[in-house]
Amino acid sequence: MTQATIGSSEFDRDTRVRLRTDGVFDADLPEGWSVGAGLNGGYLLALLGRALGEALERPDPFTITAHYLSGTTPGPAVIRTDVAARRHSTATGSARLLQPDADGNEVERVRVLGTCGDLSALPADVHTTAKPPEIPPWEHCVGAEHSPHDAERMPPIVHRLRLRLDPATLGWAIGEPSGKGEMRAWFALPDGRDHDPLSLLLAVDGLPSVAFELGIDAWVPTVELTAHVRARPAPGPVRVALTTRNVAGGYLEEDAEVWDSEDRLVAQSRQLAKIKPKPSHFRSQ
Amino acid sequence: MTQATIGSSEFDRDTRVRLRTDGVFDADLPEGWSVGAGLNGGYLLALLGRALGEALERPDPFTITAHYLSGTTPGPAVIRTDVAARRHSTATGSARLLQPDADGNEVERVRVLGTCGDLSALPADVHTTAKPPEIPPWEHCVGAEHSPHDAERMPPIVHRLRLRLDPATLGWAIGEPSGKGEMRAWFALPDGRDHDPLSLLLAVDGLPSVAFELGIDAWVPTVELTAHVRARPAPGPVRVALTTRNVAGGYLEEDAEVWDSEDRLVAQSRQLAKIKPKPSHFRSQ
Repeated sequence: MTQATIGSSEFDRDTRVRLRTDGVFDADLPEGWSVGAGLNGGYLLALLGRALGEALERPDPFTITAHYLSGTTPGPAVIRTDVAARRHSTATGSARLLQPDADGNEVERVRVLGTCGDLSALPADVHTTAKPPEIPPWEHCVGAEHSPHDAERMPPIVHRLRLRLDPATLGWAIGEPSGKGEMRAWFALPDGRDHDPLSLLLAVDGLPSVAFELGIDAWVPTVELTAHVRARPAPGPVRVALTTRNVAGGYLEEDAEVWDSEDRLVAQSRQLAKIKPKPSHFRSQ
Repeated sequence: MTQATIGSSEFDRDTRVRLRTDGVFDADLPEGWSVGAGLNGGYLLALLGRALGEALERPDPFTITAHYLSGTTPGPAVIRTDVAARRHSTATGSARLLQPDADGNEVERVRVLGTCGDLSALPADVHTTAKPPEIPPWEHCVGAEHSPHDAERMPPIVHRLRLRLDPATLGWAIGEPSGKGEMRAWFALPDGRDHDPLSLLLAVDGLPSVAFELGIDAWVPTVELTAHVRARPAPGPVRVALTTRNVAGGYLEEDAEVWDSEDRLVAQSRQLAKIKPKPSHFRSQ
Protein backbone atom coordinates (compact mmCIF):
# COMPACT_ATOMS: atom_id res chain seq x y z
CA MET A 1 0.00 0.00 0.00
CA THR A 2 1.33 3.44 -0.90
CA GLN A 3 1.65 5.80 2.05
CA ALA A 4 -1.33 8.18 1.94
CA THR A 5 -0.97 11.87 2.71
CA ILE A 6 -3.25 14.43 4.32
CA GLY A 7 -5.83 15.32 1.67
CA SER A 8 -5.49 12.11 -0.36
CA SER A 9 -6.31 9.36 2.16
CA GLU A 10 -9.31 7.17 2.83
CA PHE A 11 -10.23 9.35 5.81
CA ASP A 12 -10.14 12.52 3.67
CA ARG A 13 -12.23 10.89 0.95
CA ASP A 14 -14.81 9.62 3.45
CA THR A 15 -15.21 12.99 5.23
CA ARG A 16 -15.52 14.99 2.02
CA VAL A 17 -18.46 17.44 1.86
CA ARG A 18 -19.77 19.19 -1.26
CA LEU A 19 -21.12 22.74 -1.07
CA ARG A 20 -24.70 22.74 -2.38
CA THR A 21 -25.57 26.35 -1.58
CA ASP A 22 -24.66 28.94 1.02
CA GLY A 23 -24.02 27.04 4.27
CA VAL A 24 -25.48 23.71 3.03
CA PHE A 25 -23.32 20.70 2.22
CA ASP A 26 -24.01 17.24 0.78
CA ALA A 27 -22.16 14.12 1.84
CA ASP A 28 -22.25 10.41 1.02
CA LEU A 29 -21.57 8.40 4.13
CA PRO A 30 -19.77 5.12 3.36
CA GLU A 31 -20.44 1.84 5.15
CA GLY A 32 -16.91 1.48 6.39
CA TRP A 33 -17.37 3.52 9.57
CA SER A 34 -20.17 1.43 11.06
CA VAL A 35 -20.01 0.24 14.64
CA GLY A 36 -23.07 -1.40 16.12
CA ALA A 37 -26.27 0.29 14.99
CA GLY A 38 -24.76 3.43 13.45
CA LEU A 39 -21.66 5.20 12.21
CA ASN A 40 -18.84 5.96 14.65
CA GLY A 41 -19.25 9.17 16.65
CA GLY A 42 -15.66 10.34 16.10
CA TYR A 43 -16.03 9.87 12.34
CA LEU A 44 -19.22 11.96 12.39
CA LEU A 45 -17.52 14.62 14.53
CA ALA A 46 -14.69 14.85 11.97
CA LEU A 47 -17.20 15.08 9.09
CA LEU A 48 -19.13 17.87 10.82
CA GLY A 49 -15.92 19.59 11.92
CA ARG A 50 -14.83 19.72 8.29
CA ALA A 51 -18.18 21.17 7.13
CA LEU A 52 -18.27 23.70 9.97
CA GLY A 53 -14.70 24.82 9.24
CA GLU A 54 -15.59 25.31 5.58
CA ALA A 55 -18.73 27.30 6.46
CA LEU A 56 -16.81 29.47 8.93
CA GLU A 57 -13.80 29.79 6.58
CA ARG A 58 -11.51 28.77 9.43
CA PRO A 59 -9.49 25.56 9.00
CA ASP A 60 -9.27 24.07 12.51
CA PRO A 61 -11.81 23.12 15.19
CA PHE A 62 -10.54 24.78 18.41
CA THR A 63 -13.50 23.46 20.43
CA ILE A 64 -16.43 21.46 19.09
CA THR A 65 -19.36 19.80 20.84
CA ALA A 66 -21.61 17.14 19.32
CA HIS A 67 -24.93 15.83 20.61
CA TYR A 68 -25.89 12.49 19.04
CA LEU A 69 -29.62 12.36 18.41
CA SER A 70 -30.36 9.25 16.34
CA GLY A 71 -28.38 6.53 14.58
CA THR A 72 -26.65 7.71 11.40
CA THR A 73 -26.69 5.19 8.55
CA PRO A 74 -24.53 4.84 5.43
CA GLY A 75 -25.90 6.77 2.48
CA PRO A 76 -26.76 10.34 1.54
CA ALA A 77 -26.78 13.10 4.14
CA VAL A 78 -27.05 16.86 4.22
CA ILE A 79 -25.27 19.23 6.59
CA ARG A 80 -26.90 22.58 7.35
CA THR A 81 -24.65 25.15 9.01
CA ASP A 82 -25.46 28.41 10.76
CA VAL A 83 -22.85 31.09 11.58
CA ALA A 84 -23.18 32.60 15.07
CA ALA A 85 -20.26 35.06 15.03
CA ARG A 86 -17.16 35.92 13.03
CA ARG A 87 -14.25 37.55 14.82
CA HIS A 88 -10.76 38.60 13.74
CA SER A 89 -9.14 35.18 14.13
CA THR A 90 -11.93 32.76 15.10
CA ALA A 91 -15.57 32.13 14.24
CA THR A 92 -18.40 30.19 15.90
CA GLY A 93 -21.32 28.32 14.44
CA SER A 94 -23.61 25.29 14.49
CA ALA A 95 -24.00 22.40 12.08
CA ARG A 96 -26.76 19.81 11.80
CA LEU A 97 -26.39 16.41 10.11
CA LEU A 98 -29.66 15.25 8.56
CA GLN A 99 -30.75 12.17 6.63
CA PRO A 100 -33.98 11.50 4.73
CA ASP A 101 -36.47 9.06 6.26
CA ALA A 102 -38.64 6.69 4.20
CA ASP A 103 -40.97 9.59 3.31
CA GLY A 104 -38.09 11.87 2.32
CA ASN A 105 -38.38 14.05 5.45
CA GLU A 106 -35.08 15.17 6.95
CA VAL A 107 -34.32 13.55 10.32
CA GLU A 108 -31.64 15.19 12.48
CA ARG A 109 -28.82 12.78 13.44
CA VAL A 110 -26.19 14.97 15.09
CA ARG A 111 -26.00 18.64 16.08
CA VAL A 112 -22.69 20.37 16.73
CA LEU A 113 -21.62 23.75 18.07
CA GLY A 114 -18.03 24.84 17.57
CA THR A 115 -15.45 27.59 17.38
CA CYS A 116 -12.85 27.32 14.60
CA GLY A 117 -9.61 29.17 13.88
CA ASP A 118 -6.10 28.64 12.58
CA LEU A 119 -3.92 26.61 14.97
CA SER A 120 -0.77 27.47 13.04
CA ALA A 121 -1.32 31.17 13.85
CA LEU A 122 -1.16 30.66 17.64
CA PRO A 123 1.89 31.57 19.73
CA ALA A 124 4.29 28.73 20.53
CA ASP A 125 4.17 28.95 24.35
CA VAL A 126 3.50 25.63 26.12
CA HIS A 127 3.04 25.43 29.90
CA THR A 128 1.24 22.11 30.01
CA THR A 129 1.60 20.51 33.43
CA ALA A 130 0.21 17.15 32.27
CA LYS A 131 2.56 14.29 31.44
CA PRO A 132 2.16 11.87 28.51
CA PRO A 133 0.62 8.49 29.34
CA GLU A 134 2.94 5.60 30.08
CA ILE A 135 2.33 3.08 27.33
CA PRO A 136 4.62 0.37 25.95
CA PRO A 137 6.14 0.87 22.48
CA TRP A 138 3.90 0.26 19.45
CA GLU A 139 5.37 -3.21 18.81
CA HIS A 140 4.51 -4.36 22.34
CA CYS A 141 0.89 -3.24 22.08
CA VAL A 142 -1.98 -5.27 20.68
CA GLY A 143 -3.88 -4.69 17.44
CA ALA A 144 -6.92 -6.28 15.82
CA GLU A 145 -4.49 -8.30 13.69
CA HIS A 146 -3.46 -10.18 16.86
CA SER A 147 -7.05 -11.10 17.72
CA PRO A 148 -8.07 -14.77 17.58
CA HIS A 149 -11.42 -13.63 16.16
CA ASP A 150 -12.20 -13.66 12.45
CA ALA A 151 -11.41 -10.20 11.01
CA GLU A 152 -14.30 -10.61 8.57
CA ARG A 153 -16.73 -10.66 11.49
CA MET A 154 -15.40 -7.54 13.22
CA PRO A 155 -17.26 -4.22 12.82
CA PRO A 156 -16.17 -2.45 9.61
CA ILE A 157 -14.59 0.42 11.54
CA VAL A 158 -11.87 -1.93 12.83
CA HIS A 159 -10.38 -1.80 9.32
CA ARG A 160 -10.49 2.03 9.14
CA LEU A 161 -8.34 2.57 12.23
CA ARG A 162 -4.92 1.27 13.15
CA LEU A 163 -5.17 0.82 16.90
CA ARG A 164 -2.58 -0.76 19.20
CA LEU A 165 -3.93 -1.22 22.73
CA ASP A 166 -1.81 -1.20 25.87
CA PRO A 167 -1.87 -4.82 27.16
CA ALA A 168 -2.39 -3.41 30.68
CA THR A 169 -5.82 -2.11 29.66
CA LEU A 170 -6.87 -5.10 27.59
CA GLY A 171 -8.17 -7.40 30.33
CA TRP A 172 -11.79 -6.81 29.29
CA ALA A 173 -11.11 -8.57 25.99
CA ILE A 174 -10.43 -11.86 27.78
CA GLY A 175 -13.09 -11.41 30.45
CA GLU A 176 -10.68 -10.06 33.07
CA PRO A 177 -11.24 -6.30 33.28
CA SER A 178 -8.73 -4.44 35.46
CA GLY A 179 -11.43 -2.64 37.41
CA LYS A 180 -9.63 0.64 36.73
CA GLY A 181 -11.25 3.35 34.63
CA GLU A 182 -8.38 3.51 32.15
CA MET A 183 -7.77 2.66 28.48
CA ARG A 184 -4.66 3.49 26.44
CA ALA A 185 -3.67 2.97 22.83
CA TRP A 186 -1.51 4.05 19.93
CA PHE A 187 -3.70 5.41 17.16
CA ALA A 188 -2.84 5.68 13.45
CA LEU A 189 -4.63 5.47 10.13
CA PRO A 190 -4.18 2.23 8.14
CA ASP A 191 -3.02 3.92 4.93
CA GLY A 192 -0.27 5.73 6.83
CA ARG A 193 -1.80 9.21 6.58
CA ASP A 194 -0.40 11.43 9.31
CA HIS A 195 -2.74 13.10 11.78
CA ASP A 196 -4.19 16.58 11.44
CA PRO A 197 -6.76 18.40 13.60
CA LEU A 198 -9.67 16.61 11.89
CA SER A 199 -8.29 13.10 12.41
CA LEU A 200 -7.76 13.96 16.09
CA LEU A 201 -11.56 14.27 16.30
CA LEU A 202 -11.66 10.66 15.16
CA ALA A 203 -8.99 9.68 17.69
CA VAL A 204 -10.88 10.97 20.74
CA ASP A 205 -13.75 8.53 20.08
CA GLY A 206 -11.88 5.69 18.40
CA LEU A 207 -10.94 3.44 21.33
CA PRO A 208 -13.07 0.82 23.08
CA SER A 209 -15.04 2.42 25.93
CA VAL A 210 -13.23 2.90 29.22
CA ALA A 211 -16.32 1.30 30.77
CA PHE A 212 -15.19 -2.14 29.57
CA GLU A 213 -12.17 -2.09 31.90
CA LEU A 214 -14.57 -1.35 34.77
CA GLY A 215 -16.34 -4.62 33.97
CA ILE A 216 -19.40 -2.86 32.56
CA ASP A 217 -20.65 -5.17 29.80
CA ALA A 218 -23.14 -2.80 28.20
CA TRP A 219 -23.67 -0.49 25.27
CA VAL A 220 -22.33 2.96 26.05
CA PRO A 221 -23.64 5.30 23.32
CA THR A 222 -22.29 8.84 23.42
CA VAL A 223 -24.84 11.48 24.39
CA GLU A 224 -22.45 14.43 24.05
CA LEU A 225 -18.79 14.81 23.20
CA THR A 226 -16.68 17.97 23.39
CA ALA A 227 -13.18 18.08 21.94
CA HIS A 228 -10.53 20.79 22.17
CA VAL A 229 -7.83 20.63 19.51
CA ARG A 230 -4.88 22.59 20.86
CA ALA A 231 -2.10 22.12 18.30
CA ARG A 232 -1.38 20.61 14.89
CA PRO A 233 0.04 17.16 15.61
CA ALA A 234 3.58 16.15 14.61
CA PRO A 235 3.85 13.24 12.12
CA GLY A 236 3.43 9.67 13.33
CA PRO A 237 0.95 7.74 15.47
CA VAL A 238 -0.57 9.52 18.47
CA ARG A 239 -1.10 8.10 21.96
CA VAL A 240 -4.64 8.27 23.35
CA ALA A 241 -5.36 7.88 27.07
CA LEU A 242 -8.93 7.50 28.34
CA THR A 243 -10.01 7.85 31.94
CA THR A 244 -13.30 8.15 33.81
CA ARG A 245 -13.90 9.67 37.22
CA ASN A 246 -17.66 9.49 37.41
CA VAL A 247 -19.81 6.43 36.69
CA ALA A 248 -23.20 7.10 38.29
CA GLY A 249 -26.93 7.20 37.67
CA GLY A 250 -26.73 5.17 34.47
CA TYR A 251 -24.25 7.56 32.81
CA LEU A 252 -20.50 7.87 32.67
CA GLU A 253 -18.07 10.64 31.81
CA GLU A 254 -15.05 9.65 29.69
CA ASP A 255 -12.04 11.93 29.22
CA ALA A 256 -9.49 11.52 26.42
CA GLU A 257 -6.05 13.03 26.03
CA VAL A 258 -4.21 12.78 22.72
CA TRP A 259 -0.41 13.16 22.69
CA ASP A 260 1.67 13.47 19.54
CA SER A 261 5.11 12.03 18.73
CA GLU A 262 6.79 15.16 20.14
CA ASP A 263 5.06 14.75 23.54
CA ARG A 264 2.67 17.61 22.92
CA LEU A 265 -0.85 17.37 24.34
CA VAL A 266 -2.63 18.10 21.06
CA ALA A 267 -6.26 17.32 21.95
CA GLN A 268 -8.47 16.82 24.98
CA SER A 269 -12.04 15.60 25.03
CA ARG A 270 -14.78 14.71 27.44
CA GLN A 271 -17.94 12.79 26.68
CA LEU A 272 -21.10 11.89 28.53
CA ALA A 273 -22.24 8.38 27.64
CA LYS A 274 -25.32 6.44 28.65
CA ILE A 275 -24.98 2.92 30.05
CA LYS A 276 -27.55 0.77 28.26
CA PRO A 277 -27.86 -2.88 29.28
CA LYS A 278 -27.42 -5.25 26.33
CA PRO A 279 -30.19 -7.66 25.45
CA SER A 280 -29.31 -10.96 27.13
CA HIS A 281 -28.26 -12.75 23.89
CA PHE A 282 -25.51 -10.13 23.43
CA ARG A 283 -23.91 -10.57 26.84
CA SER A 284 -20.44 -12.03 26.93
CA GLN A 285 -20.98 -13.88 30.23
CA MET B 1 -31.81 38.10 56.29
CA THR B 2 -34.49 35.42 55.94
CA GLN B 3 -33.18 32.15 54.49
CA ALA B 4 -34.21 32.01 50.84
CA THR B 5 -35.44 28.80 49.25
CA ILE B 6 -35.16 27.33 45.76
CA GLY B 7 -37.63 29.26 43.64
CA SER B 8 -37.81 32.37 45.85
CA SER B 9 -34.18 33.56 45.95
CA GLU B 10 -32.24 36.35 44.29
CA PHE B 11 -30.71 33.81 41.90
CA ASP B 12 -34.14 32.50 40.88
CA ARG B 13 -35.47 36.03 40.37
CA ASP B 14 -32.44 37.05 38.28
CA THR B 15 -32.59 33.98 36.03
CA ARG B 16 -36.34 34.23 35.39
CA VAL B 17 -37.44 34.02 31.75
CA ARG B 18 -40.89 34.90 30.39
CA LEU B 19 -42.40 32.92 27.51
CA ARG B 20 -43.20 35.35 24.67
CA THR B 21 -44.26 32.82 22.07
CA ASP B 22 -43.41 29.26 21.12
CA GLY B 23 -39.72 28.75 21.95
CA VAL B 24 -38.97 32.46 22.51
CA PHE B 25 -38.35 33.94 25.96
CA ASP B 26 -37.78 37.46 27.28
CA ALA B 27 -35.45 38.28 30.15
CA ASP B 28 -34.29 41.40 31.98
CA LEU B 29 -30.66 41.01 32.93
CA PRO B 30 -29.84 42.83 36.18
CA GLU B 31 -26.57 44.69 36.83
CA GLY B 32 -25.65 42.56 39.81
CA TRP B 33 -23.90 39.81 37.81
CA SER B 34 -21.31 42.03 36.13
CA VAL B 35 -17.66 41.11 36.15
CA GLY B 36 -15.27 43.13 34.03
CA ALA B 37 -16.82 44.06 30.70
CA GLY B 38 -19.87 41.78 30.77
CA LEU B 39 -22.09 39.52 32.83
CA ASN B 40 -20.63 36.39 34.44
CA GLY B 41 -20.50 33.34 32.18
CA GLY B 42 -21.87 30.96 34.81
CA TYR B 43 -24.84 33.25 35.43
CA LEU B 44 -25.56 33.34 31.69
CA LEU B 45 -25.22 29.54 31.48
CA ALA B 46 -27.79 29.17 34.28
CA LEU B 47 -30.15 31.64 32.57
CA LEU B 48 -29.90 29.78 29.26
CA GLY B 49 -30.10 26.40 31.00
CA ARG B 50 -33.38 27.49 32.56
CA ALA B 51 -34.82 28.67 29.21
CA LEU B 52 -33.64 25.54 27.40
CA GLY B 53 -35.15 23.29 30.07
CA GLU B 54 -38.48 25.10 29.76
CA ALA B 55 -38.43 24.86 25.96
CA LEU B 56 -37.56 21.14 26.10
CA GLU B 57 -40.02 20.51 28.97
CA ARG B 58 -37.26 18.74 30.89
CA PRO B 59 -36.18 20.23 34.22
CA ASP B 60 -32.45 19.53 34.45
CA PRO B 61 -29.43 20.22 32.22
CA PHE B 62 -27.62 16.86 31.90
CA THR B 63 -24.97 18.34 29.60
CA ILE B 64 -24.84 21.90 28.29
CA THR B 65 -22.24 23.75 26.22
CA ALA B 66 -22.01 27.52 25.85
CA HIS B 67 -19.94 29.53 23.37
CA TYR B 68 -19.54 33.16 24.43
CA LEU B 69 -19.68 35.45 21.41
CA SER B 70 -19.83 39.05 22.64
CA GLY B 71 -20.14 40.83 26.00
CA THR B 72 -23.63 40.61 27.52
CA THR B 73 -24.78 43.81 29.22
CA PRO B 74 -27.47 44.45 31.85
CA GLY B 75 -30.87 45.17 30.31
CA PRO B 76 -33.40 43.46 28.06
CA ALA B 77 -32.55 40.24 26.23
CA VAL B 78 -34.36 37.64 24.19
CA ILE B 79 -33.68 33.91 24.15
CA ARG B 80 -34.56 31.95 21.01
CA THR B 81 -34.64 28.17 21.39
CA ASP B 82 -34.70 25.39 18.83
CA VAL B 83 -35.58 21.77 19.63
CA ALA B 84 -33.32 19.17 17.97
CA ALA B 85 -34.87 15.95 19.31
CA ARG B 86 -37.30 14.74 21.95
CA ARG B 87 -36.83 11.24 23.34
CA HIS B 88 -38.59 9.24 26.04
CA SER B 89 -36.67 10.70 28.97
CA THR B 90 -34.37 13.37 27.55
CA ALA B 91 -34.47 16.08 24.89
CA THR B 92 -31.82 18.12 23.06
CA GLY B 93 -31.86 21.65 21.73
CA SER B 94 -30.10 24.96 21.18
CA ALA B 95 -30.69 28.39 22.68
CA ARG B 96 -29.35 31.76 21.59
CA LEU B 97 -29.13 34.82 23.85
CA LEU B 98 -29.59 38.06 21.89
CA GLN B 99 -29.60 41.74 22.79
CA PRO B 100 -30.60 44.76 20.68
CA ASP B 101 -27.83 47.03 19.42
CA ALA B 102 -28.22 50.83 19.07
CA ASP B 103 -30.23 50.33 15.86
CA GLY B 104 -32.49 47.71 17.43
CA ASN B 105 -30.88 44.79 15.57
CA GLU B 106 -30.44 41.60 17.57
CA VAL B 107 -26.80 40.78 18.35
CA GLU B 108 -26.02 37.24 19.48
CA ARG B 109 -24.23 37.10 22.85
CA VAL B 110 -24.15 33.40 23.75
CA ARG B 111 -25.16 30.19 21.98
CA VAL B 112 -25.78 26.97 23.89
CA LEU B 113 -26.42 23.35 22.93
CA GLY B 114 -27.72 21.00 25.60
CA THR B 115 -29.50 17.80 26.55
CA CYS B 116 -31.96 18.00 29.43
CA GLY B 117 -33.80 15.37 31.48
CA ASP B 118 -34.95 14.61 35.00
CA LEU B 119 -32.08 13.82 37.37
CA SER B 120 -34.46 12.54 40.05
CA ALA B 121 -35.58 9.76 37.66
CA LEU B 122 -32.06 8.26 37.32
CA PRO B 123 -30.99 5.07 39.10
CA ALA B 124 -29.09 5.54 42.37
CA ASP B 125 -25.92 3.62 41.44
CA VAL B 126 -22.67 5.52 42.09
CA HIS B 127 -19.27 4.09 41.07
CA THR B 128 -17.35 7.34 41.08
CA THR B 129 -13.65 6.69 41.49
CA ALA B 130 -12.83 10.37 42.11
CA LYS B 131 -12.29 11.64 45.65
CA PRO B 132 -13.56 14.96 47.02
CA PRO B 133 -11.00 17.78 47.16
CA GLU B 134 -9.12 18.33 50.37
CA ILE B 135 -10.16 21.75 51.56
CA PRO B 136 -10.19 23.21 55.09
CA PRO B 137 -13.54 23.73 56.82
CA TRP B 138 -15.64 26.74 55.76
CA GLU B 139 -14.58 28.80 58.78
CA HIS B 140 -10.90 28.38 57.92
CA CYS B 141 -11.36 29.53 54.33
CA VAL B 142 -11.29 33.11 53.11
CA GLY B 143 -14.20 35.18 51.82
CA ALA B 144 -14.53 38.63 50.29
CA GLU B 145 -15.55 39.86 53.74
CA HIS B 146 -11.98 39.19 54.91
CA SER B 147 -10.46 41.27 52.12
CA PRO B 148 -8.66 44.50 53.04
CA HIS B 149 -10.14 46.04 49.89
CA ASP B 150 -13.24 48.22 49.92
CA ALA B 151 -16.27 46.01 49.22
CA GLU B 152 -17.93 48.90 47.39
CA ARG B 153 -15.17 48.81 44.77
CA MET B 154 -15.36 45.07 44.10
CA PRO B 155 -17.20 43.80 40.99
CA PRO B 156 -20.96 43.50 41.68
CA ILE B 157 -20.88 39.73 41.32
CA VAL B 158 -18.84 39.42 44.53
CA HIS B 159 -22.05 40.24 46.42
CA ARG B 160 -24.12 37.63 44.53
CA LEU B 161 -21.93 34.67 45.53
CA ARG B 162 -20.78 33.45 48.91
CA LEU B 163 -17.31 32.12 48.19
CA ARG B 164 -14.78 30.87 50.72
CA LEU B 165 -11.40 30.19 49.12
CA ASP B 166 -8.89 27.63 50.32
CA PRO B 167 -5.96 29.64 51.75
CA ALA B 168 -3.60 27.21 49.96
CA THR B 169 -4.84 28.51 46.58
CA LEU B 170 -5.01 32.19 47.52
CA GLY B 171 -1.38 33.19 46.97
CA TRP B 172 -2.25 35.08 43.78
CA ALA B 173 -4.27 37.59 45.84
CA ILE B 174 -1.13 38.76 47.65
CA GLY B 175 1.17 38.52 44.64
CA GLU B 176 2.53 35.08 45.57
CA PRO B 177 0.85 32.55 43.26
CA SER B 178 1.58 28.92 44.12
CA GLY B 179 2.59 28.07 40.55
CA LYS B 180 0.19 25.10 40.65
CA GLY B 181 -2.83 24.96 38.38
CA GLU B 182 -5.30 24.56 41.26
CA MET B 183 -8.07 26.61 42.88
CA ARG B 184 -10.51 25.41 45.55
CA ALA B 185 -13.44 27.00 47.32
CA TRP B 186 -16.66 26.52 49.21
CA PHE B 187 -19.55 27.96 47.22
CA ALA B 188 -22.94 29.09 48.54
CA LEU B 189 -25.53 31.74 47.73
CA PRO B 190 -25.63 34.78 50.04
CA ASP B 191 -29.34 34.50 50.84
CA GLY B 192 -28.88 30.92 51.98
CA ARG B 193 -30.71 29.30 49.06
CA ASP B 194 -29.61 25.69 48.68
CA HIS B 195 -28.12 24.50 45.41
CA ASP B 196 -30.04 22.89 42.59
CA PRO B 197 -28.87 21.83 39.09
CA LEU B 198 -29.17 25.41 37.77
CA SER B 199 -27.08 27.00 40.52
CA LEU B 200 -24.40 24.35 39.86
CA LEU B 201 -24.04 25.95 36.41
CA LEU B 202 -23.20 29.15 38.27
CA ALA B 203 -20.77 27.30 40.55
CA VAL B 204 -18.64 25.87 37.72
CA ASP B 205 -17.71 29.40 36.55
CA GLY B 206 -17.90 31.30 39.84
CA LEU B 207 -14.33 31.05 41.15
CA PRO B 208 -11.32 33.19 40.22
CA SER B 209 -9.50 31.67 37.23
CA VAL B 210 -7.09 28.85 37.92
CA ALA B 211 -4.67 30.84 35.74
CA PHE B 212 -4.07 33.31 38.58
CA GLU B 213 -2.36 30.64 40.71
CA LEU B 214 -0.06 29.96 37.75
CA GLY B 215 1.04 33.60 37.94
CA ILE B 216 -0.78 34.54 34.75
CA ASP B 217 -1.87 38.15 35.28
CA ALA B 218 -4.21 38.45 32.32
CA TRP B 219 -7.84 38.45 31.33
CA VAL B 220 -9.04 34.91 30.68
CA PRO B 221 -12.43 35.18 28.97
CA THR B 222 -14.25 31.90 28.43
CA VAL B 223 -14.52 30.83 24.79
CA GLU B 224 -16.51 27.67 25.52
CA LEU B 225 -17.75 25.94 28.65
CA THR B 226 -19.36 22.50 28.91
CA ALA B 227 -20.98 21.35 32.15
CA HIS B 228 -22.38 17.94 33.08
CA VAL B 229 -24.83 17.96 35.99
CA ARG B 230 -24.91 14.41 37.35
CA ALA B 231 -27.13 14.58 40.44
CA ARG B 232 -29.35 16.93 42.42
CA PRO B 233 -27.11 18.34 45.14
CA ALA B 234 -27.79 17.75 48.84
CA PRO B 235 -28.49 20.91 50.93
CA GLY B 236 -25.60 23.11 52.05
CA PRO B 237 -22.59 24.73 50.42
CA VAL B 238 -20.76 22.80 47.69
CA ARG B 239 -17.01 22.43 47.25
CA VAL B 240 -15.57 23.44 43.87
CA ALA B 241 -12.12 22.31 42.72
CA LEU B 242 -10.53 23.80 39.61
CA THR B 243 -7.51 22.38 37.81
CA THR B 244 -5.78 22.93 34.51
CA ARG B 245 -3.57 20.52 32.60
CA ASN B 246 -2.98 22.45 29.42
CA VAL B 247 -1.87 26.09 29.16
CA ALA B 248 -0.52 26.56 25.63
CA GLY B 249 -0.78 28.67 22.51
CA GLY B 250 -2.52 31.54 24.25
CA TYR B 251 -5.37 29.35 25.56
CA LEU B 252 -5.98 27.30 28.66
CA GLU B 253 -8.33 24.50 29.60
CA GLU B 254 -9.91 24.69 33.06
CA ASP B 255 -11.72 21.75 34.66
CA ALA B 256 -14.15 22.08 37.56
CA GLU B 257 -15.56 19.44 39.88
CA VAL B 258 -18.43 20.26 42.22
CA TRP B 259 -18.99 18.09 45.31
CA ASP B 260 -22.04 18.31 47.55
CA SER B 261 -22.31 17.99 51.35
CA GLU B 262 -22.82 14.21 51.04
CA ASP B 263 -19.55 13.78 49.10
CA ARG B 264 -21.31 13.22 45.78
CA LEU B 265 -19.65 14.49 42.60
CA VAL B 266 -22.68 16.43 41.36
CA ALA B 267 -21.20 18.39 38.46
CA GLN B 268 -18.15 18.43 36.20
CA SER B 269 -17.18 21.09 33.71
CA ARG B 270 -14.40 21.98 31.31
CA GLN B 271 -13.83 25.32 29.67
CA LEU B 272 -11.50 26.68 27.02
CA ALA B 273 -10.40 30.21 27.88
CA LYS B 274 -8.28 32.69 25.97
CA ILE B 275 -5.34 34.37 27.67
CA LYS B 276 -5.56 38.08 26.82
CA PRO B 277 -2.82 40.39 28.12
CA LYS B 278 -4.20 43.26 30.17
CA PRO B 279 -3.46 46.82 29.10
CA SER B 280 -0.42 47.93 31.13
CA HIS B 281 -2.39 50.22 33.50
CA PHE B 282 -4.35 47.17 34.70
CA ARG B 283 -1.37 45.05 35.63
CA SER B 284 -0.85 44.33 39.27
CA GLN B 285 2.96 44.41 39.03
